[in-house]
Amino acid sequence: MRAEVLAVGTELLLGDIINTNAASIGQALASIGVDCYMHTTVGDNEDRIAGAMAVALERADALIITGGLGPTQDDVTREAIARVTGRPLIRDPEIEQQLRARFAELGRPMPEVNARQADVPKGASIIEPTWGTAPGLIIEHAGGVMYAVPGVPAEMEDMLARAVLPDLVRRTGEPTRIVSRIIRIAGISESAIAEKLQDVWQMLGGERTMAFLAGGGEVRVRLTAKAPDAARAQDLVAAAEASVRSALGAAVIGVDDETLEAVVGTLLLARGWTLGAAESLTGGALGSRISSTPGASEYFRGSIVSYATDVKEDLLGVPAWVLEEYGPVSEPVARAMADGARARLTADIAVALTGVAGPSEQGRPVGTVVIAVAGPLGEVVREVRLPGDRSTVRTLAVSGGLNLVRLYLLEAT
Amino acid sequence: MRAEVLAVGTELLLGDIINTNAASIGQALASIGVDCYMHTTVGDNEDRIAGAMAVALERADALIITGGLGPTQDDVTREAIARVTGRPLIRDPEIEQQLRARFAELGRPMPEVNARQADVPKGASIIEPTWGTAPGLIIEHAGGVMYAVPGVPAEMEDMLARAVLPDLVRRTGEPTRIVSRIIRIAGISESAIAEKLQDVWQMLGGERTMAFLAGGGEVRVRLTAKAPDAARAQDLVAAAEASVRSALGAAVIGVDDETLEAVVGTLLLARGWTLGAAESLTGGALGSRISSTPGASEYFRGSIVSYATDVKEDLLGVPAWVLEEYGPVSEPVARAMADGARARLTADIAVALTGVAGPSEQGRPVGTVVIAVAGPLGEVVREVRLPGDRSTVRTLAVSGGLNLVRLYLLEAT
Repeated sequence: MRAEVLAVGTELLLGDIINTNAASIGQALASIGVDCYMHTTVGDNEDRIAGAMAVALERADALIITGGLGPTQDDVTREAIARVTGRPLIRDPEIEQQLRARFAELGRPMPEVNARQADVPKGASIIEPTWGTAPGLIIEHAGGVMYAVPGVPAEMEDMLARAVLPDLVRRTGEPTRIVSRIIRIAGISESAIAEKLQDVWQMLGGERTMAFLAGGGEVRVRLTAKAPDAARAQDLVAAAEASVRSALGAAVIGVDDETLEAVVGTLLLARGWTLGAAESLTGGALGSRISSTPGASEYFRGSIVSYATDVKEDLLGVPAWVLEEYGPVSEPVARAMADGARARLTADIAVALTGVAGPSEQGRPVGTVVIAVAGPLGEVVREVRLPGDRSTVRTLAVSGGLNLVRLYLLEAT
Repeated sequence: MRAEVLAVGTELLLGDIINTNAASIGQALASIGVDCYMHTTVGDNEDRIAGAMAVALERADALIITGGLGPTQDDVTREAIARVTGRPLIRDPEIEQQLRARFAELGRPMPEVNARQADVPKGASIIEPTWGTAPGLIIEHAGGVMYAVPGVPAEMEDMLARAVLPDLVRRTGEPTRIVSRIIRIAGISESAIAEKLQDVWQMLGGERTMAFLAGGGEVRVRLTAKAPDAARAQDLVAAAEASVRSALGAAVIGVDDETLEAVVGTLLLARGWTLGAAESLTGGALGSRISSTPGASEYFRGSIVSYATDVKEDLLGVPAWVLEEYGPVSEPVARAMADGARARLTADIAVALTGVAGPSEQGRPVGTVVIAVAGPLGEVVREVRLPGDRSTVRTLAVSGGLNLVRLYLLEAT
């Protein structure tokens, strides 16, 4: 079974809204083992919608269409389906009745234009709407099937889960299951990972694939396996994961939704330690990220954001002569910031970040970041040179800081 | 001139990441008056990438391809271009040299796999990368033009603005100009804005459109005008903007890239005031956001992130009896936090945020947030009830805090 996704909406082409539906449907299809090789977006134009449908139906067994089912004149997905399938649109009196009843419930008369939403291509099945006014459609055509659902994400998700996925599963009857796992990696570049995984790559056959995705200070490796049953697919992925872990060691943060901040939290809880932070160039982003995990109050004490240099003296107790002699972006200052945060926030361990986010140089080149961790095992300091613009440098600095905390905690086992 | 966008990446089809590039490119193409009728996404498969390119080039004059330019084995956009255009890939010694130099700058040896990024289809022009290691490509073929840029949004945006759009404008020579302006609004709901703008809506003819987009604690109204020349389109947009501003007053933050944090910075600079913060539920996110603007060190002192309740006492001087009597999420505590931050950070004004981000209730219902601003004009405190999950509540709390600072600064004129 091979599916495609067709999104309808000029606002998507103009970039007024982001097509989050494509990603949601992609995840949903993968979860039921249906291959999806293409996503397409077209505007509110009957010719182009019909053209895109016809082309997609030549390639795929199933086509999920989002959008263009609204009541206004620019909503022409129904007409395009009618044209492609050669079926007339017939106004369904029952749906029209339901539409009128829905408006009556809300205490308003139904604008006559809304009656268009009761137009159904002959022979199509209806997916009744839970909230919106637009019913969804299921149309069999030329050995394949088309699903038309609303573009509003909540309405789309509802019909997808309630009607589209069950119908697809019923039709597939295919025994193939796809299992994916994301391995999250920090502190090592994408290309260095690729080199270390060259043997793993060769081990994978046609039934397993590996893909790389870098961003936000980590690299994600997606392992995907295809097998006649879920247990076999799970085994294939687990074996590949074991090989990746043995090739990369402590650089592996975790899998799937085990984010860096969540893993740091788990390690802190396991040791019964609390964490404090001292931040300069990141302005509070490390504290924001570590506290994004629910339950962070059990291990996160807080952060002293010493953006101005004299605040490093006043609130973190960094000696004036150290700032003077080494400059604010230096190993001695990062150390003193971590010590200060640990003491002032009464935390078991503390991480400090100081650096140059850019665009201007401030004594050291843009991208220079010094990270220090202080705790019961002593201090660790790293100076790194991070690539990218201001925002990227800040994001990478936060990831670098959390990763140094993670490695410190792993050492402390 | 008709363009299409082709995104390459299995992670997009699987829904691991959302294709935000399509929207950014859509906006950019609209801004230079280039029609875009289709967005397509395909996975990391050379056959299917080449097939999608060939089909798109039949329909369009220009094709912008994002992704698949990385160093790893699954990055095959270069190979697909070579195949579609029938041109060999030639390793460019100068690019290879630059790649090695870039790694040397960062103090690391270049993994040999990265040399693939120096492979260029014969006759293609190069878009030099600003940060990443992947150069972009411009290839003329069969009367049209293809642009290949990286999938990482920051790198894509950079090459789009620096090379792709200027090249497209040079090629079009078309007289129609589209001018857009985004009006950013805070502290008022989307539907209340729509009501206040009913008259403006009626004033707009076919040459102007207005679209709403809500998210991240603000509402953006996009005004777009189409005219034979840029000056006329600018005038049309300016007139519509004036009407929107007069209908909404101080709720308008600014236009286009005038973010809430940038506007707060400008207002602080105008008054010669500095800002400090005390954060609880947001964990440092307000400090992170205010310091995301280059030059923030001129007005941002820092933030005391008192995530643990006793840190509110120790570092912000909130009296224990106030915490005891009113609880940490209360107006008296928010006031005391703002006063404490103002004093400890020696800032002219300070903003404090305390609240319940969820998922658990902590004495007050999830979404309860108290914001206080203290400064030369005295104190302002607001208790609000924010909708959404943990992440949304935190984001809205930061926007609410910055907006209260903005309104305070406007009062202080």
